Amino acid sequence: MTSEAPKRKKTVMNERWLREINWSQDGLVPAIAQEAGSGKVLMVAWMNREALKATADGGEAVYWSRSRKRLWRKGEESGHVQKVRSIRLDCDEDVILLEVEQLGGIACHTGRGNCFFRRLEDGQWVVTDPVLKDPEQIYGAGTEDADAGKGAKAE
Amino acid sequence: MTSEAPKRKKTVMNERWLREINWSQDGLVPAIAQEAGSGKVLMVAWMNREALKATADGGEAVYWSRSRKRLWRKGEESGHVQKVRSIRLDCDEDVILLEVEQLGGIACHTGRGNCFFRRLEDGQWVVTDPVLKDPEQIYGAGTEDADAGKGAKAE
Repeated sequence: MTSEAPKRKKTVMNERWLREINWSQDGLVPAIAQEAGSGKVLMVAWMNREALKATADGGEAVYWSRSRKRLWRKGEESGHVQKVRSIRLDCDEDVILLEVEQLGGIACHTGRGNCFFRRLEDGQWVVTDPVLKDPEQIYGAGTEDADAGKGAKAE
Repeated sequence: MTSEAPKRKKTVMNERWLREINWSQDGLVPAIAQEAGSGKVLMVAWMNREALKATADGGEAVYWSRSRKRLWRKGEESGHVQKVRSIRLDCDEDVILLEVEQLGGIACHTGRGNCFFRRLEDGQWVVTDPVLKDPEQIYGAGTEDADAGKGAKAE
């Protein structure tokens, strides 16, 4: 009986940082993945409480897929895992910033290094970044993985 | 009569880029402001169609304040205007990335350089960045401006 008390206390203390997050009504916050070193903003996805906890515990980015309604371990199909170096929180406690090492150098489901590959120029979105690897090679052609890969990022 | 046709056509063409955005149900997208040069992620706020158009047209960041339900010209009270160097769009067309020059070197309503001034360390959010200027000096003490400054960022 008495031996359980310290354990419970530790768990409560460990999860206090999660309660400081201002989750949206649907229990999510946006999370930005920024590449360590280059400082490039790679992508933005969503996290729920479980995803953020899993990211902190495991050291690899885990998001919440809104389209698939399940945890999405980044790289689970593509192998493009994000090793997390730091987790930051903004002043309003409603946005997470991850500093990551992007394995494979590809964060985007289009096969590009990052998701922000279009820049506004003279009233048009112009593609500025090349496809580094064919998405069909990453996710497989016509498989569920391909849909999942796209859906995961698209969500 | 005939002289109006080209003008109308031009307007439609100019706004095509805005129609390519996947606005949320409430007509918003998150916008990340990243500092040119340093690559630091300064803050995240929201934009509606009008805010994004005003940002593109004017070259200074304009957001939509969800708390005040009006356009929020960043720096309108603090003077901490963001000069926009580029506007990027992600693969799902639902996140904007601004490359900005941050006037005054302060993006956050707390008087810090950026909003991501807390890092997760051993299960606690630890403040890593100093306050560069007292918010009361930025917004005025006990005035509507102070509330506005906080509300604007807090929204």
